[in-house]
Amino acid sequence: MAWRKPAVSSNHVDGHPFFRFCQTALADIRAQGRYRQFTPLSRLADRYPLYEQPETAPTPSTPACPEDREVVVWSSNDYLGMGVEPVVVEAAIRAIHEHGAGAGGTRNIAGTSPVHTALEAELADLHGKEAGLLFGSGYVSNQASLQTILTSMPGWICFSDRLNHASMIAGIKGARGSSTVIFEHNDLADLEARLAAAPKDAPKLIAFESVYSMDGDIADIAGTCALARKYGAMTYLDEVHAVGLYGAQGGGVSQRDGVADQVDIIEGTLAKGFGVHGGYITATSNIVEYLRLSASGFIFTTALPPAVVAAALASVKQVRKDNWRRERIFERVDTFRAKLRAAGIPFNMTPSHIVPIPVGDARRCRELSDRLLNDYGMYTTPINYPTVPRGTERLRLTPGPRHTDAMMDEMVAALGHLLRVNDLADASAVAMA
Amino acid sequence: MAWRKPAVSSNHVDGHPFFRFCQTALADIRAQGRYRQFTPLSRLADRYPLYEQPETAPTPSTPACPEDREVVVWSSNDYLGMGVEPVVVEAAIRAIHEHGAGAGGTRNIAGTSPVHTALEAELADLHGKEAGLLFGSGYVSNQASLQTILTSMPGWICFSDRLNHASMIAGIKGARGSSTVIFEHNDLADLEARLAAAPKDAPKLIAFESVYSMDGDIADIAGTCALARKYGAMTYLDEVHAVGLYGAQGGGVSQRDGVADQVDIIEGTLAKGFGVHGGYITATSNIVEYLRLSASGFIFTTALPPAVVAAALASVKQVRKDNWRRERIFERVDTFRAKLRAAGIPFNMTPSHIVPIPVGDARRCRELSDRLLNDYGMYTTPINYPTVPRGTERLRLTPGPRHTDAMMDEMVAALGHLLRVNDLADASAVAMA
Repeated sequence: MAWRKPAVSSNHVDGHPFFRFCQTALADIRAQGRYRQFTPLSRLADRYPLYEQPETAPTPSTPACPEDREVVVWSSNDYLGMGVEPVVVEAAIRAIHEHGAGAGGTRNIAGTSPVHTALEAELADLHGKEAGLLFGSGYVSNQASLQTILTSMPGWICFSDRLNHASMIAGIKGARGSSTVIFEHNDLADLEARLAAAPKDAPKLIAFESVYSMDGDIADIAGTCALARKYGAMTYLDEVHAVGLYGAQGGGVSQRDGVADQVDIIEGTLAKGFGVHGGYITATSNIVEYLRLSASGFIFTTALPPAVVAAALASVKQVRKDNWRRERIFERVDTFRAKLRAAGIPFNMTPSHIVPIPVGDARRCRELSDRLLNDYGMYTTPINYPTVPRGTERLRLTPGPRHTDAMMDEMVAALGHLLRVNDLADASAVAMA
Repeated sequence: MAWRKPAVSSNHVDGHPFFRFCQTALADIRAQGRYRQFTPLSRLADRYPLYEQPETAPTPSTPACPEDREVVVWSSNDYLGMGVEPVVVEAAIRAIHEHGAGAGGTRNIAGTSPVHTALEAELADLHGKEAGLLFGSGYVSNQASLQTILTSMPGWICFSDRLNHASMIAGIKGARGSSTVIFEHNDLADLEARLAAAPKDAPKLIAFESVYSMDGDIADIAGTCALARKYGAMTYLDEVHAVGLYGAQGGGVSQRDGVADQVDIIEGTLAKGFGVHGGYITATSNIVEYLRLSASGFIFTTALPPAVVAAALASVKQVRKDNWRRERIFERVDTFRAKLRAAGIPFNMTPSHIVPIPVGDARRCRELSDRLLNDYGMYTTPINYPTVPRGTERLRLTPGPRHTDAMMDEMVAALGHLLRVNDLADASAVAMA
């Protein structure tokens, strides 16, 4: 699909400084090698992780593809493949037949179906909390919840991990009148020093994640909650990259570690481990009720379609039961790492399911991704600024239950060739393997 | 679905001031009569605007319903009923079969399918713009676009209509470093005075809506754009409640008035007139590209599911072709107003498809809605603060193509009884009929 030629032009294209600003900004982004093209890929539901890349003429925002081809995707966040599981697909289709394609209104304006409240109860139960609340996305759940909490009373101080996700930062920064204290990533000593230095009677919130998605490291939730108790802080934990994958029922790292009851607010997504769409929080009834009645990003937006919610509910129920899915993904990740190690391919070892391959340069990262796609039919997203700091560009691989040994061998061989023969590796990172 | 009893309690439920704050805030909201219960309603796709209200025990957030019953919904924002049209339903189901239930990643991380780029091109074409960009919702499209634009350069001044939607306000307020000038609602003289008083060389943006959804009035887009030209401002127009319904192809009021080419950025939704889910902007390629590469709320969130996008694309194509749908909704609205007028029921006459019935008190508004639902099986959402200012509470009715004359007669009779016999009318508003 090509971008269209202008059918009409604006009335003052050349007159407003923003038009010039955009031109310059785009030129700068290109010059820095971090211009992003989105590769159009059609997921093949019955052959996941295979996708079809359709024939496309090059456009400003999408790369060329000379003919339709199949590619193996190594970057999906549908970690368990739940989005293509028959039980999920069938729940979605049944709900569309029964209720149509959209919700038709906000939650307050005829947009609350019984399946919305059922999913909220299911998620509360998953995390052992009194209540749950759905949002349009994980991004919105973080932004709306944090901003609403941190503007509820005067004097809030939010202690925020340096590597928190953009959506948490958006909510924290958006909370005018509150203060923010950034603590060093996963550094409890630094967090404690900053808590100790803060005014004793100020309301405090510690905002952090369990699995940090770009580095794949995992927070010490028990340790963080112990500090929260000691200094009278509330805790807000983003389990977006952990739900479905960790814990006896997929309740996340807080469930695996047996500390979910120590966390005040657990936030998650339905779009990664659960394979569908939408975000949520779980907490005490009072907190959930306050957000339900106060958070602008919850109130003034169309409810998730009943079919999305029905599919998510089917997925959560299934994932809670099927422990073999969690065993399977970690077996696959371990196997893939063993193959990388045997081939001498540098990667960052992480305690999670995420396998980062360091590259360290935006242009090289882009080229490596392009070559994997065009020469080998394997897709891994180049992760560049602003998603990660400049100089830490990487490929980020997420092997899943459906990546076969043969697919892994092909990826390892391709990486070996491109990194060594074509010298696309991060020189500083080779020693990390 | 009942809210669960606490399975576990937080580690310091009584210790943190936010817990007490929530309790007090909820008590205040209840005392003001503006506590919101969400009525669970299942849309019956093949009998829209009929919904099923399931038997429910009362919970803090949902009202009781003694047994399953059917209700006629008068408050849906799926104005044309496109969410239940076979062409839309079938497109969604086909896409789920082919691609699964979710997108599996952000737009940059394997979440861009060919149908995403096709829908963006279709929306650009609908509004006569060079390019389009999808967001998770209309709320996010406004918030993310406005905030990103207004923080792009120093010195931005945003001229914002006093009644702009919460999502626009969120983006404008979130743009730290920019200034905001509120002008009186739909008041071009006031807007011009404020533009004239602003520094000549500051970058300026006028942010406004075409159809204001709670009052149903319509902006003078041509007049606003003329002022924008005179004072060198950019224009950002929210057509959320107009797309699908106004203009020869449903391109909104800007299309109806032949002035879409004079508006720099047109924002819309896929969740109201198009009956599905998601939001978008259309503009010049450079503006769209800048937002695509810079807006946090676009970049760091899972793409809309391919099935949602496919359903929306089918809907937009159909709505563009079917002018009879637009004729039909306005015929239905006119008929309903004539029936209200004949029965002496007060309502606010508007130049749009929206029929507000003034009530003027939160508790009375809630009671009127409850009585309509429980005694008559008709659902209209009570519109209270914070959606509208206190003292202007109302019912907001949206008659659509599928509301029959018989349904209308029943609503008019019920309103007549409740407003007169039960004295639930807004005394100050009766004269407005």
